[in-house]
Amino acid sequence: MNSFGTVFKITTWGESHGYAMGVIIDGCPAGLTINENEITQYLRKNDRPIPEIATGRIEPNNVEILSGVDDNKTIGTPISILIKNEDYKKKDYKNINKIFRPGHGDYTFYAKYRSPYQSGGGRASGRECITRLAAGYIAEKLIRQYCRKFKIKTKLTSMAGISIFDNKSLKKAINKVKQIAENGDSSGGELEIKIRGLPPGIGEPVFDGVDAKIASALMGIGAVKSVEFGLGKIAACARGSEYNDDFCLIGNKISFVTNHNGGVLSGISNGDDLIVSVAVKPTPSILKTKTGITADKQVKDVSVAGRHDKNITPRIAPIARAMISLVLADYLLLSGRIKRDFIIKKEKSYENLSVSIG
Amino acid sequence: MNSFGTVFKITTWGESHGYAMGVIIDGCPAGLTINENEITQYLRKNDRPIPEIATGRIEPNNVEILSGVDDNKTIGTPISILIKNEDYKKKDYKNINKIFRPGHGDYTFYAKYRSPYQSGGGRASGRECITRLAAGYIAEKLIRQYCRKFKIKTKLTSMAGISIFDNKSLKKAINKVKQIAENGDSSGGELEIKIRGLPPGIGEPVFDGVDAKIASALMGIGAVKSVEFGLGKIAACARGSEYNDDFCLIGNKISFVTNHNGGVLSGISNGDDLIVSVAVKPTPSILKTKTGITADKQVKDVSVAGRHDKNITPRIAPIARAMISLVLADYLLLSGRIKRDFIIKKEKSYENLSVSIG
Amino acid sequence: MNSFGTVFKITTWGESHGYAMGVIIDGCPAGLTINENEITQYLRKNDRPIPEIATGRIEPNNVEILSGVDDNKTIGTPISILIKNEDYKKKDYKNINKIFRPGHGDYTFYAKYRSPYQSGGGRASGRECITRLAAGYIAEKLIRQYCRKFKIKTKLTSMAGISIFDNKSLKKAINKVKQIAENGDSSGGELEIKIRGLPPGIGEPVFDGVDAKIASALMGIGAVKSVEFGLGKIAACARGSEYNDDFCLIGNKISFVTNHNGGVLSGISNGDDLIVSVAVKPTPSILKTKTGITADKQVKDVSVAGRHDKNITPRIAPIARAMISLVLADYLLLSGRIKRDFIIKKEKSYENLSVSIG
Amino acid sequence: MNSFGTVFKITTWGESHGYAMGVIIDGCPAGLTINENEITQYLRKNDRPIPEIATGRIEPNNVEILSGVDDNKTIGTPISILIKNEDYKKKDYKNINKIFRPGHGDYTFYAKYRSPYQSGGGRASGRECITRLAAGYIAEKLIRQYCRKFKIKTKLTSMAGISIFDNKSLKKAINKVKQIAENGDSSGGELEIKIRGLPPGIGEPVFDGVDAKIASALMGIGAVKSVEFGLGKIAACARGSEYNDDFCLIGNKISFVTNHNGGVLSGISNGDDLIVSVAVKPTPSILKTKTGITADKQVKDVSVAGRHDKNITPRIAPIARAMISLVLADYLLLSGRIKRDFIIKKEKSYENLSVSIG
Repeated sequence: MNSFGTVFKITTWGESHGYAMGVIIDGCPAGLTINENEITQYLRKNDRPIPEIATGRIEPNNVEILSGVDDNKTIGTPISILIKNEDYKKKDYKNINKIFRPGHGDYTFYAKYRSPYQSGGGRASGRECITRLAAGYIAEKLIRQYCRKFKIKTKLTSMAGISIFDNKSLKKAINKVKQIAENGDSSGGELEIKIRGLPPGIGEPVFDGVDAKIASALMGIGAVKSVEFGLGKIAACARGSEYNDDFCLIGNKISFVTNHNGGVLSGISNGDDLIVSVAVKPTPSILKTKTGITADKQVKDVSVAGRHDKNITPRIAPIARAMISLVLADYLLLSGRIKRDFIIKKEKSYENLSVSIG
Repeated sequence: MNSFGTVFKITTWGESHGYAMGVIIDGCPAGLTINENEITQYLRKNDRPIPEIATGRIEPNNVEILSGVDDNKTIGTPISILIKNEDYKKKDYKNINKIFRPGHGDYTFYAKYRSPYQSGGGRASGRECITRLAAGYIAEKLIRQYCRKFKIKTKLTSMAGISIFDNKSLKKAINKVKQIAENGDSSGGELEIKIRGLPPGIGEPVFDGVDAKIASALMGIGAVKSVEFGLGKIAACARGSEYNDDFCLIGNKISFVTNHNGGVLSGISNGDDLIVSVAVKPTPSILKTKTGITADKQVKDVSVAGRHDKNITPRIAPIARAMISLVLADYLLLSGRIKRDFIIKKEKSYENLSVSIG
Repeated sequence: MNSFGTVFKITTWGESHGYAMGVIIDGCPAGLTINENEITQYLRKNDRPIPEIATGRIEPNNVEILSGVDDNKTIGTPISILIKNEDYKKKDYKNINKIFRPGHGDYTFYAKYRSPYQSGGGRASGRECITRLAAGYIAEKLIRQYCRKFKIKTKLTSMAGISIFDNKSLKKAINKVKQIAENGDSSGGELEIKIRGLPPGIGEPVFDGVDAKIASALMGIGAVKSVEFGLGKIAACARGSEYNDDFCLIGNKISFVTNHNGGVLSGISNGDDLIVSVAVKPTPSILKTKTGITADKQVKDVSVAGRHDKNITPRIAPIARAMISLVLADYLLLSGRIKRDFIIKKEKSYENLSVSIG
Repeated sequence: MNSFGTVFKITTWGESHGYAMGVIIDGCPAGLTINENEITQYLRKNDRPIPEIATGRIEPNNVEILSGVDDNKTIGTPISILIKNEDYKKKDYKNINKIFRPGHGDYTFYAKYRSPYQSGGGRASGRECITRLAAGYIAEKLIRQYCRKFKIKTKLTSMAGISIFDNKSLKKAINKVKQIAENGDSSGGELEIKIRGLPPGIGEPVFDGVDAKIASALMGIGAVKSVEFGLGKIAACARGSEYNDDFCLIGNKISFVTNHNGGVLSGISNGDDLIVSVAVKPTPSILKTKTGITADKQVKDVSVAGRHDKNITPRIAPIARAMISLVLADYLLLSGRIKRDFIIKKEKSYENLSVSIG
């Protein structure tokens, strides 16, 4: 299924080496200000956050809004966005044509669909995510109508095994990534994402918790292999007495002394920052020779030339941000905090409502 | 939302200290043999896998099947299962009534619903999971109709910071857990789950990958704080040349030399074992004093007596298994591998179909 | 699928001659006042609106609320309702056992599920609808929190070919129905349903219009064979100049001179009454001999004794009302007009918001 | 929501006077042969079945397939179809700009979205349906992979109050329609749709019956005001003894002597033809003066020039066919009769399976 979300719902389409990538955004209320140019600028800025270690495929990412917007405002009907693929070369993939590459989705797509080999990975390509960025941008803009201080901060915490905490260590990590790439190899990394400004009470208990949905949203990004909330795995070694986040009052606001749980308890946000971490595997496309296989079961050496990311981790950051925005916009609409039909100016936040126990 | 699944869909209900827990299983084909007794036995065996560190609340877990089964066979209509709550004492919770306990969902549920404090955690209690076990049992039985060698193995890999690899280390870990509990504190742990016997081609690309769905299913279990596939976080430090799983042929079957990806590529199973790991946080209920808060914003000390798990990790194992079975049964039905309406004897596996490229 | 609705979602279970009928209501906000007794009373009053032509099966319809309600208020968790089947006799169906009765779902259920013959029709029995009445009652109560003047009026407009417009014609129709039944035969009828008090703007364009959803909800009631909006079929013979409903102002409210469209334009309510009509087929169970068939293809005479409705039309009225309430509660929640999490006192209606064109 | 279907799912976008109309088809198995040209031809032939009474807006309807198809075969990924709007004149609508026209969705869309007036009706235009035709064409082609003799026949049964049963009466009806149009007025009509070749057992009981889904699919077409199955409203006047369809054997096949129920019992197909009828209201756009209203509540005369259908009924026929194909393709995939992932040649029909009662 190529749809995501219940009320704020997106449907994406397009193959990496096809004519274009596209997304339909259904369920965005009328009255939100958006235009093609701002999304294009956003995509250009975020598609390749660290250009020197990103793929050489540089797409102009010109956003065309084909429906759902009139005079720079959404009108309530589905927003159709199209982004042409302009910079790709089918020949790069020729030599590996019909060999299932290790680490890629070639074989699993074939096992599922029995359809011919898709140049450039088809749907299982990083290129697919450009539509998520566009949709996520709109989702985030919508969320700000209700949560005025909403902010998602993504932090690159490691690459190629080197921890990143300042500019110097970042530089070191980038150099390491480049050195590995010169060697015909690739590397992975880690990200931490902090979501600030979300009120308590967001999420659905039992199966559709804010942690469960975000885990699904992030694990659904190609190269992500682990998702953690708050302290994550460290929780396994902690004592309850140190792990439990004590309550406190900051001003008149119910708050927490620590945030080991990552802002979520029983699937529902507690008003503290949501904190999520992901681990990203090394780019599967490498020059070094590995062993692939063909559909007729010939085991074969394979070395992937083409243009690929030296390290995909930085590019995952804006995608993670987009996916989280999509999850949260959906919750805010589903709960009625944001009205579905049209933007109401000065939407009253739930937090301002007086609270008293029955 | 208290439903899970698209075709094989369950809906659960019941509060921890209410009359009963229940689940409706909708979408199970007709003709599957099940009876109340086998599910009751399964629940009794799996509800408290290591009794000496589990809660003192021992429920008989008598399963009542109220609909959907005739003469020990499913008939295609929704299966309604009811399990009465018999062993609970409302008084245990009296002293903490109306104080939101740290580490629990008390506050977040209140922030969401503004409804009065639910004794025993209401829906946000481990007790809620008994219905998942019952539904997961049926899902697993169904999967075996198609995947004859299907097997889910769960392994307790650590508790209280002690790695478990044999009976001796297990004993050590259990003792550590008990010692911590005697001190009025609690501990967490880790699990690894291996799913064997799944054909390649299971899962949906892009948003609904088998890894994304399983991540959501597992992160939706109360105490789980991290989900990893294959090597998990280690992927972040690996090189592409060592991480990519090389293809090989075993007999005439397309196979892999290693399984770093955990059996999934681009959201679709590759025929190797699915390997997932989770980290479980320490039981939030502890005797040691921590800081809670009331709805009218009084910061208060709180110490939780009652009967609680010393360490919840072993109890998560069968729940994880159940959730994964639910995910996989749904995929098999959705793809038409298992027919939705009734069980067809000797259902032909996709694997046997001859494969050739167009 | 035995679920209905997106946000206000019900899942029903139970067979006609099984232990009980049940429904889970998921998505009802916390804070709605309900109790078992009021629903029981409602069911008793509405299950058999004209007792003298209804089935002799008289169920006590004692409602048991097993979860989701505390101290007579909903708490946001799923509401599980159970209604035991007490008055049924399996023997009535013995002689027709294993003969598929004409006009019933026996054969089609068998064609679908290949499961053994269900006494009393299993799920395809009027008895199944008792759970819809219970859920519809709650939905209607919820709608009134937002639409203070909301009202659904059902009118029996014909039975056995006799138009009903006053008490005298009703009596005549009832007598006709009885006379036909004495002859071992059965009859059908018609209903008109008026929904008053709904604001304009309810519904979703294109596929999920308020007319489309209501049509589905009503056609999903066993014996209903036609659904019409406003003038219905007469539209086919009308001119545009007479059919189009002219606008007018009543006080300061945008209104209509006529209501030929039945309160809906392009799938969205226009603020006028929704008007829907349905035709109900004659009760399929009759004493007169008709031709059935067995699973092994023996054509056989069949005459249905048991206790059956002489005319099912009056019993459809409250079910139609319930189904429409379920549709509308879902829309009001989906659009955020009613908040999903908890009831907010004096919810502001959209109508009061000032309107101005951009 | 602009999506339709569960497994075979379409999402449509585009406004009548926007750049293009589009549809994403998600869930079509890989391996189905389709090309742009055949769909273009199909649209041209079916968009205006009786040109002399259809709108003067003649679109070339050039179909562009932007994704999901490689070398004229579907590959399992979403199929994105785009059809440009080329023949429209915004000025036609100038004079009525900002007056809500009676009989149209102008006011209800405004009540819902508060967005500015959409020229040409925006999404609430017959033009929106061109995407349904394209998707329906693919659905029908897919159904034929499993149901070799599948056929949908649509019959125009009346226009402008004149019954149509042969070419002569058709001519008479067309002339009547034209005469009414010359008078500045419009007319409605009726359609009957017969679906042949569907096996018994299709549909879901209780809420998602084949009749309920088709009723929703057809009532969701703009001008449709009534939906009937089999004898339809006449059922209300019939006796059970004459209405019940007696079983019989034709050859060795379970069949029916009559088809009053329209091929469906308890929401599930019985193997006989599905028979559905709809009534279509008169085109709301007429030259004759009627009363509209503006957003600031000025009651105003309105006469709609532009180019409009004299009678929309013939154009509804292929749309009804498309919607029914979408419903049925979805059922066949959902039940696993058609496999979701890829087309299997010589898919075995359920009917061939031996049947025996437990």
